Amino acid sequence: MPGPAYTRLDVDERRRRLLALGADLFTRFAYDELSMAKIAREAGISKALLYHYFPSKEAYFVATLEEKAAELQRRTEPDPSLAPVEQLAHSLDAYLQWIEENASSYEKMIRSSGVPEVRAMLDRVREETGQRIIDGLKAPGEPATPALRTAVTGWLWFMDGACLDWVAHRDLEREALHGLLLATLLAAALSAGEATTAT
Amino acid sequence: MPGPAYTRLDVDERRRRLLALGADLFTRFAYDELSMAKIAREAGISKALLYHYFPSKEAYFVATLEEKAAELQRRTEPDPSLAPVEQLAHSLDAYLQWIEENASSYEKMIRSSGVPEVRAMLDRVREETGQRIIDGLKAPGEPATPALRTAVTGWLWFMDGACLDWVAHRDLEREALHGLLLATLLAAALSAGEATTAT
Repeated sequence: MPGPAYTRLDVDERRRRLLALGADLFTRFAYDELSMAKIAREAGISKALLYHYFPSKEAYFVATLEEKAAELQRRTEPDPSLAPVEQLAHSLDAYLQWIEENASSYEKMIRSSGVPEVRAMLDRVREETGQRIIDGLKAPGEPATPALRTAVTGWLWFMDGACLDWVAHRDLEREALHGLLLATLLAAALSAGEATTAT
Repeated sequence: MPGPAYTRLDVDERRRRLLALGADLFTRFAYDELSMAKIAREAGISKALLYHYFPSKEAYFVATLEEKAAELQRRTEPDPSLAPVEQLAHSLDAYLQWIEENASSYEKMIRSSGVPEVRAMLDRVREETGQRIIDGLKAPGEPATPALRTAVTGWLWFMDGACLDWVAHRDLEREALHGLLLATLLAAALSAGEATTAT
């Protein structure tokens, strides 16, 4: 995209602000309560300018969730200097911290899996995260077994189900949830290892 | 509802057949490819009669999934003459058998959680199943701890994530998946017990 540097910065900055505004609006209002006109008013810009950034309300909604998901992925990026299980424990802790701070966005994201773009994003994030975890758990140099892949996939769902429950009830310490999640993953991986050697 | 017995039987029977047809149609065709006209043609009845049974295509879709979910619940009804963990193992086996036989309906059901009625049904089934499992796992006469509730909720999601993966890949024996699921549940419940006594 050609153009002087300060213009591009303005564009990026405005987009960033619109995405932050969207994360707030879509959790404060039901999807159907918001219109592009209302969003433009809240942003203090013209409807035409809003459409310049996002072609539709759905595209805007999906972009705000994608931005949140990207932030979550950055925060949970594993530290390669640690041992695999420690990397996992650290990333998991970062994940839970992020959810604690962004509970509404998190709920919205998981609960919007009926929107095709959101589901594609969730599937992609789960697959990348799953691959990362599998690589840390499997025997080096060997392919992951179907049982391990199933266990890790199941556990990523476990994590979302447990986190939604946590966010809804708020009656569990983050440390207790962290311990429960990590113990369950390791037990599932162990059981997957047994399932494989048994065949 | 008054009226002679044979008429009511006809009505129930036609509704039953329409629901069976729907389960087939909604897995063979994308939702948007089906219209009430096409459904009526496939059923060999008039559009007016179809509307008499179901006020809209969405209502028909939701009803077919509800019928499948009710069938699944009947099949997994626990046998009270068994010990709690055995009840669980039996119900889980029946659940996996049902998924093996109804893979397309199962995928459709889980993947349609964006439809509010389907989500409400999935939430209700998960809650009932979760309560059943919690009652079998918790100390008798005591309330379930938040950690146990979170563990069981998470595990129900684990089960759906693992089953979707299983249906998509078909590279795991049902017995191996059964063992993985049961071991993971018991490990999660155990870990939840430790989380609780630690506070």
